[in-house]
Amino acid sequence: MPTRLTNYFLKTLREDPADAEVTSHRLLVRAGYIRRQAPGIFAWLPLGLRVKSKIEAIIREEMTNAGAHEVHFPALLPKEPYEVSGRYVEYGDGMFRLNDRRGAGYVLAPTHEEVFTLLVKDLYNSYKDLPLSIYQIQDKYRDEARPRAGLLRGREFTMKDAYSFDYTDAGLDVSYQAQRDAYERIFTRLGLEYVIVKADAGAMGGSKSEEFLHPTLVGEDTFVRSAGGYAANVEAFTTLAPPTRSYEKLTPAEVLDTPDTPTIASLVEVANAVHPRPDGTAWNASETLKNVVLALTHLDHTREIVAVGLPGDREVDLKRAEVAFAPAEVEAATEDDFTLHPGLVKGYIGPWSPEGAVLGEKSSTGIRYFVDPRVVDGSGWITGSNIHGKHVFGLVAGRDFTADGTIEIAEVKAGDPAPDGSGPVELARGMEIGHVFQLGRKYAEALGLKVLDENGKLVTVTMGSYGIGVTRILAIIAELNNDENGLIWPPAVAPFDVHVVVAGRAGKDDAIFEAAETIVADIERSGRSVLFDDRPKVSPGVKFGDAELIGVPKIVIVGRGVVDKTVEVWNRASGERIEVPVDGVVNAL
Amino acid sequence: MPTRLTNYFLKTLREDPADAEVTSHRLLVRAGYIRRQAPGIFAWLPLGLRVKSKIEAIIREEMTNAGAHEVHFPALLPKEPYEVSGRYVEYGDGMFRLNDRRGAGYVLAPTHEEVFTLLVKDLYNSYKDLPLSIYQIQDKYRDEARPRAGLLRGREFTMKDAYSFDYTDAGLDVSYQAQRDAYERIFTRLGLEYVIVKADAGAMGGSKSEEFLHPTLVGEDTFVRSAGGYAANVEAFTTLAPPTRSYEKLTPAEVLDTPDTPTIASLVEVANAVHPRPDGTAWNASETLKNVVLALTHLDHTREIVAVGLPGDREVDLKRAEVAFAPAEVEAATEDDFTLHPGLVKGYIGPWSPEGAVLGEKSSTGIRYFVDPRVVDGSGWITGSNIHGKHVFGLVAGRDFTADGTIEIAEVKAGDPAPDGSGPVELARGMEIGHVFQLGRKYAEALGLKVLDENGKLVTVTMGSYGIGVTRILAIIAELNNDENGLIWPPAVAPFDVHVVVAGRAGKDDAIFEAAETIVADIERSGRSVLFDDRPKVSPGVKFGDAELIGVPKIVIVGRGVVDKTVEVWNRASGERIEVPVDGVVNAL
Repeated sequence: MPTRLTNYFLKTLREDPADAEVTSHRLLVRAGYIRRQAPGIFAWLPLGLRVKSKIEAIIREEMTNAGAHEVHFPALLPKEPYEVSGRYVEYGDGMFRLNDRRGAGYVLAPTHEEVFTLLVKDLYNSYKDLPLSIYQIQDKYRDEARPRAGLLRGREFTMKDAYSFDYTDAGLDVSYQAQRDAYERIFTRLGLEYVIVKADAGAMGGSKSEEFLHPTLVGEDTFVRSAGGYAANVEAFTTLAPPTRSYEKLTPAEVLDTPDTPTIASLVEVANAVHPRPDGTAWNASETLKNVVLALTHLDHTREIVAVGLPGDREVDLKRAEVAFAPAEVEAATEDDFTLHPGLVKGYIGPWSPEGAVLGEKSSTGIRYFVDPRVVDGSGWITGSNIHGKHVFGLVAGRDFTADGTIEIAEVKAGDPAPDGSGPVELARGMEIGHVFQLGRKYAEALGLKVLDENGKLVTVTMGSYGIGVTRILAIIAELNNDENGLIWPPAVAPFDVHVVVAGRAGKDDAIFEAAETIVADIERSGRSVLFDDRPKVSPGVKFGDAELIGVPKIVIVGRGVVDKTVEVWNRASGERIEVPVDGVVNAL
Repeated sequence: MPTRLTNYFLKTLREDPADAEVTSHRLLVRAGYIRRQAPGIFAWLPLGLRVKSKIEAIIREEMTNAGAHEVHFPALLPKEPYEVSGRYVEYGDGMFRLNDRRGAGYVLAPTHEEVFTLLVKDLYNSYKDLPLSIYQIQDKYRDEARPRAGLLRGREFTMKDAYSFDYTDAGLDVSYQAQRDAYERIFTRLGLEYVIVKADAGAMGGSKSEEFLHPTLVGEDTFVRSAGGYAANVEAFTTLAPPTRSYEKLTPAEVLDTPDTPTIASLVEVANAVHPRPDGTAWNASETLKNVVLALTHLDHTREIVAVGLPGDREVDLKRAEVAFAPAEVEAATEDDFTLHPGLVKGYIGPWSPEGAVLGEKSSTGIRYFVDPRVVDGSGWITGSNIHGKHVFGLVAGRDFTADGTIEIAEVKAGDPAPDGSGPVELARGMEIGHVFQLGRKYAEALGLKVLDENGKLVTVTMGSYGIGVTRILAIIAELNNDENGLIWPPAVAPFDVHVVVAGRAGKDDAIFEAAETIVADIERSGRSVLFDDRPKVSPGVKFGDAELIGVPKIVIVGRGVVDKTVEVWNRASGERIEVPVDGVVNAL
């Protein structure tokens, strides 16, 4: 049975929705796929639900091929498992919380690691039960501070989340690889180009993690790759530290006048003009040490001021800083923070002053001090002396100051060396389409998931977690497949295979309507699904416009040509329209 | 590809779960279909999810056949639409409520009338857009006071809810009938016997409503039916009131001593012994008027005492009382209530005393007074006189006392006349499996859903609402199809078509395992899904036990017989086991 527009639930809109920030949101609303219910929360209309179901079907097939079995957890879950794992606190305001009528605490699950772990613990107890991979396709909830970009960052969204359970590290590697392979097949079938990059495990914890990114200029994620095969998102990129150097022969540090040099650029200029290097070569910004003061807000809501020293030619990358300091939240220190720390001389901050250590554990300020990995022992720097208008030259790490640790918050630049030695990296942008994690034993340990091994010994299970945002993927496909007239779905996920338009009006062109019925029946017999625009009093022009907006890949136009037994077949993607004999329609499709 | 038990996520349990009150709950947990997460909240394991998907597929097909289109709403919805309809308050503690990070109020939807209404209002504006029927299959949330009986009354449950939109009453009748017909097809396909009974519209509001009940002795609902075709659940049954009588010739009421008669039985005994009827026939309980004192808790949490007069041979039916007084909650008055109302003389309460009216608007107590429909004007009663040890005889309704209205809270008895004149009713028990409502214009009026009719006039839309509890249906099917060894699924919803058991042990019986692989492949080629018990080291006895517990309708046992090219085909329902040649397995199935 074809789906007839005469009684379908569909209203295409001429106007873009006022709140649409991105193309996919604009077109999915206008073409009648989704409708907003609240910020970041959407209802799925019949066309949208069909596309979503097709994506889910592809994911299910490949999960089955990967040996994973489908289960389904409630969205509403008791809070206790999330308290045990620590995520009840870590998620902060991002988690929807509620109480039932008896006052028991619940959450709307943002992901399900905890309860999958508990379910396996509940039912399994032997290595013979493993390996196990299980997954669900479920609506997830995250109370985003700024839901935006339509389905790309919603507060309710559908996700496929899979979890693997093994009792050996080698087993986890196999399970992880099976999911990773399935993801490659899924994205290939969905027609989504992807790059697999090293990722930071973030709030999930765990050891190894990779992201599938779709490379696109408008992506919200930045990643790096080298010609030699290295790829990572910038949050996961690690800096290749230079070797430490001996500082035995280095001259002592020297405090010099550098008036009016609160910025790195002014400092380099003054240094070259007033304090030229003995050998005559110019100082450059990478030889200065910039000290950035940041404010951390810890989970217990305490505020801590920290300082980070990094080469003066690098800016702070806030995303890298967020990951580096997680789960604390990080922001630039405010004027109030500086007022509370009079030991910091703005524009001339450094780890050292002629009176001793200024930053770090046993210093005058007591402020924790971290440095970029490039600040290795034996490296010498021009940096603030904590005296207004003066810098110290030749301050040597390990000799003159000691940090509390290294930290990766400096921006990554094109040309930086890949950490695996595979050459310089380039920067690119992409959208996250999937994420695979080796969680390791974090959740199993927290929640007590152990099994008996071959020797009858209790061992903690090691886990993986594998996610694809179904509704996000749908939005990305829409974002990538459209033109000024509407959507252009790839056949694998199109809501229908064929859109048949009757180019005529009931009453005047009844023969055309009759012919269209026969043609639709023929197409359906060939196994293709049909959206049939049989609206009796809508003009052909409006019908064509709707067909373009909706974006079914093939459009068959049944019009006056049927007297000569011909119809038109319109390829939505190429725009090509060819005339074919009525009995050749199925072949032409 | 068969599903192999060697790597399936399944653990059958020997013990019944401690909290299981009903067979379906006990067996679905033991056989590995579901697992409890919180009171009334379950996770679906792979076997359970397969059965659920099959039920959903049948429902989807019949919704499509009924011309309904599938959509999908969020479970998390803004509270405002529910406030406008009044249900935000009416649901009381039964609704899960929460706030987002900005303090905006949300609910977990218990049903979706409001947002379906708003969606259609949002997109449609003309009679040409109607009729429209749309539905979803969605997880619903109700914070039940006593979640119980496993899936039969959960707090999270899956429901198919459909809504129809028309602009004429005749149109609503057509849409309603289409859904009603679809329900008949669905329950027939699911093998669920049903009775369609008149129902009370309850919290949904609206005018006409019918329930689909599965008749069963263990059902929690009582319904009545007459030989002439009347059927209603007891909450919706209406009493056929006798005609009013003239009281001009009736003698005045008379207060008589009736010591020690606080109960109807004692009253009838004393009346016959001490105050016989003039014509010598015996008084009976149906001629006495029993006055029951109830406490209502209104939505604004105020408590009100009311009295209800009903024939002495009838008990109060609490379910009917709940419906009659909804949305107020009702319970028996407590000792405290009586203490606060000293005008009520326990055991001798009546609407009248020699000093005047005791119950009703302008009475000494001011307590509202309702009567059973049998208490018509001109009917005379023996009832309490509000004096300890005395009753009044011949107290006539309409002459001696007036009620604030009639109310249906008396029990229905076998033999009561059906209100449509189709003869006496019998009582039966059943389980609700579906519910169809004509909502009428209640929601459309509250939320402003109007369309332009043929004459360009704005008219309010009239709606229907149609629900099937998917997970409840699954539990009912399990409840009806089992024996002492486990589940016995009807083929239409069985998780697999065939369960193949290798009756042997790896190492010793490798030829049997090999033969089984071929047989499984043959069965799958015939289009049947297979659960393959290929566990290498599990004894045949344990495998047979699991097969019986899981309840796939056909079990194929591949054992030593394969040397003679035979296997056994076991019919789970009948218990019959027949030996068939290996190449005849598919035919035997």
